[in-house]
Amino acid sequence: MNIIKDNKLIFRLVEKKDWRDVYSLLNQLTELLGTVRDKDECWDKFISNNSNNAIVGLYNNQIIAYGSIVIENKIRGELAGHIEDIVVDRNFRDKNIGVKLIKKLVKIGYKKDCYRITLTCDQSLINFYSKNGFNVNNIAMKKHL
Amino acid sequence: MNIIKDNKLIFRLVEKKDWRDVYSLLNQLTELLGTVRDKDECWDKFISNNSNNAIVGLYNNQIIAYGSIVIENKIRGELAGHIEDIVVDRNFRDKNIGVKLIKKLVKIGYKKDCYRITLTCDQSLINFYSKNGFNVNNIAMKKHL
Repeated sequence: MNIIKDNKLIFRLVEKKDWRDVYSLLNQLTELLGTVRDKDECWDKFISNNSNNAIVGLYNNQIIAYGSIVIENKIRGELAGHIEDIVVDRNFRDKNIGVKLIKKLVKIGYKKDCYRITLTCDQSLINFYSKNGFNVNNIAMKKHL
Repeated sequence: MNIIKDNKLIFRLVEKKDWRDVYSLLNQLTELLGTVRDKDECWDKFISNNSNNAIVGLYNNQIIAYGSIVIENKIRGELAGHIEDIVVDRNFRDKNIGVKLIKKLVKIGYKKDCYRITLTCDQSLINFYSKNGFNVNNIAMKKHL
């Protein structure tokens, strides 16, 4: 499939019924091995996040994209948005769906009054995120526990 | 003052009574200009974060350090820690206080079962965070709203 018909592409907030599909989709990014996860437990914890806003993209009613913006209340009163876990199904890449997904998440951050939105990504994705008005500003570091 | 006496340095969770001191301390990082903030409103929003764990460092009962770890419940059930807003009072830098602060935050993330902790920082701080076992792994990008 080469062409995406815009009227068949829908973005909406993630719902519990999407959980298994989103799980599989995120496995395309990082596979969770050797772990049996309980849907109800994961979902309950997930929605206990304060203002965690995650959206799915559907094409012909099939979930083909997922992304989240975590909204952090800073101690001085500012709100900061953190974009996390962006994924587009491997059969639907290079069709501008990721750009649309990011636009939706940025809009959520804007509506919630975030003063800024940050994300971390691989060097190869700098150009992609620049299209959405993001600028390189720091180094991201990680520690596994 | 050149020497820090360890028995006078205490770390504990931030409390509402610390708010003004933490506010001033964070102004050393990024000054909030032209904004009058209401302590009660800021604090209420701040503690509404799910599992936002922030700590202060005190020396002789004076607040000289602050840092936070935001704990994110991912949709697949993993917990991710995000270290945010690390600051040590400019009169107390280069005395290893930051390293101790990061250790405390990492310990919180470990106790809460985070599988990984991330942070973003300026290039000049890579060496500092490496001392705490963090490795460079990505680019951080930002968009102001």
